[in-house]
Amino acid sequence: MTGFKVALHTENNALYQKLLMQQNLPDLQICEDASQATIVLAAPPLLAPNLSHYPNVEWVQSTYAGIDALTADELNKNYQLTNVKGIFGQQIAEYVLGYSIAHYRHFSLYREQQTNRDWQPHRYQSLSSKTMVIFGTGSIGQHLAKSAKALNIRAIGVNRTGIPAKACEFTDVFHINEAARAVKQADIIVNTLPNTAQTANLFDAALFSNCQGALFFNVGRGQSVDSAALLAALEAGQLEHAFLDVFINEPISQECPYWHHPQVTVTPHVAAISFPEQVIEIFVENYLRWRDGFQLQNRIDFDRGY
Amino acid sequence: MTGFKVALHTENNALYQKLLMQQNLPDLQICEDASQATIVLAAPPLLAPNLSHYPNVEWVQSTYAGIDALTADELNKNYQLTNVKGIFGQQIAEYVLGYSIAHYRHFSLYREQQTNRDWQPHRYQSLSSKTMVIFGTGSIGQHLAKSAKALNIRAIGVNRTGIPAKACEFTDVFHINEAARAVKQADIIVNTLPNTAQTANLFDAALFSNCQGALFFNVGRGQSVDSAALLAALEAGQLEHAFLDVFINEPISQECPYWHHPQVTVTPHVAAISFPEQVIEIFVENYLRWRDGFQLQNRIDFDRGY
Repeated sequence: MTGFKVALHTENNALYQKLLMQQNLPDLQICEDASQATIVLAAPPLLAPNLSHYPNVEWVQSTYAGIDALTADELNKNYQLTNVKGIFGQQIAEYVLGYSIAHYRHFSLYREQQTNRDWQPHRYQSLSSKTMVIFGTGSIGQHLAKSAKALNIRAIGVNRTGIPAKACEFTDVFHINEAARAVKQADIIVNTLPNTAQTANLFDAALFSNCQGALFFNVGRGQSVDSAALLAALEAGQLEHAFLDVFINEPISQECPYWHHPQVTVTPHVAAISFPEQVIEIFVENYLRWRDGFQLQNRIDFDRGY
Repeated sequence: MTGFKVALHTENNALYQKLLMQQNLPDLQICEDASQATIVLAAPPLLAPNLSHYPNVEWVQSTYAGIDALTADELNKNYQLTNVKGIFGQQIAEYVLGYSIAHYRHFSLYREQQTNRDWQPHRYQSLSSKTMVIFGTGSIGQHLAKSAKALNIRAIGVNRTGIPAKACEFTDVFHINEAARAVKQADIIVNTLPNTAQTANLFDAALFSNCQGALFFNVGRGQSVDSAALLAALEAGQLEHAFLDVFINEPISQECPYWHHPQVTVTPHVAAISFPEQVIEIFVENYLRWRDGFQLQNRIDFDRGY
């Protein structure tokens, strides 16, 4: 048989294999031998240390949105890398809106009170007319902006160009160099940016000094945040609470000050996960393009890093 | 001075007085003497036992949506009663969507894990493609349906007529007699109905027997729910969790089984509160109509009870 050989390098190869076989893709063979594979369906952090075992790789379809593990200097980049896009917006919107509502509507307090059989209403603010500043105006940022708008939250975008994506739900879009001006207005700040040289330590003491009691969400990458500056901003009241789902090292260590900080919510990288059924849909569409010699979708530019 | 005399009978007369005076309404006097007042701005549960002190009342503007306290048989009904509408949809949407997200996305579990410095991701379901069955297709139900749709939740309405409100966001509307058929499809059930003879004990064992692990929200009135049936439905797995904000007697007693039930979330009637600034806006508009002899808005029909 002439055809294409795909290897699986994910946290759940058995499930991916099953889903892939159900698709019955023409001219595609799942192969166990890494040295034979020309296509790899892979989780970037798992593939990165093993990339050299795939000498014939021509195309890697990432099962994640974040592919930064594969951008390290020493790694082979002589193949096409594609990621998954468009499937995380809903999950990120749930995470950000859910925790924002839980915060402003005192869910934790009422839970404690229930434990004590304590009936005590508290004043609250509705989320309507709050302002959310979203770093990143790609598909995740746009989806979040749209969902926020449905709850009457004003969404402002920050990106590399200052140019709004077309048909998007942002009331305003700032250039990344104007980030300070954007966060001044923020009740809620959300980082959805990838890890690149430009985004490293973007959220530092200087930027936080413009905030006035904002909620801060990191659902992008841990590298974008200066941890010491974040803790200082919480202390100073520049930030009211931080919801952190991504970290430079995961899991975070037992000594990490986030765990027991009353103004920090830690979640174990679950704001948006790749549901294998959705990843396979994306793989199938790209595979059919690959087979027919067309350009792949969601291609990564190694120079830009996303 | 000839004019109109308004008395205040709320939980926060000082604030209402201040807000009212800022409005400088023509021909309106705030009056301390109940016997002189022809207009009363009042919280129904506070006014009900004191209604006889207002022998000259012609119009009561309720500061609540729920006016059932004023519909008791023995009370005078020889006046026009108006309530507040259109200001609760946002708050109810926040409450229902916030707790739904918190449930499906394991917020409580992650909070516990954080206390134990435990990094442990869990599988979850997104809310997209869930079905929400909303009892009541008035302004609250419609607002909720619209917000739910923005999170890709399908909203089905149940009302007295089976006829959809115009331009609404329900994919389907069932007649109340078909409620069983509606809840069979429900992942999330929300009661927003007022307390009337028709809604008393609407949520009983027979109706719950059609549910399959649904979340149940009561943000309408406690009287609509048979408590014993609710507890049995949780036990039987027909319901997965109940979020209860309204109760027949508030506060609920220390002995109430809801307090310590792991599948029940109790909140102290805070899903939607009347923000005085918004109530005053509604009062002002109605007062100008009243003064000019036009029909009031949001009039209650004592026979229907809403």
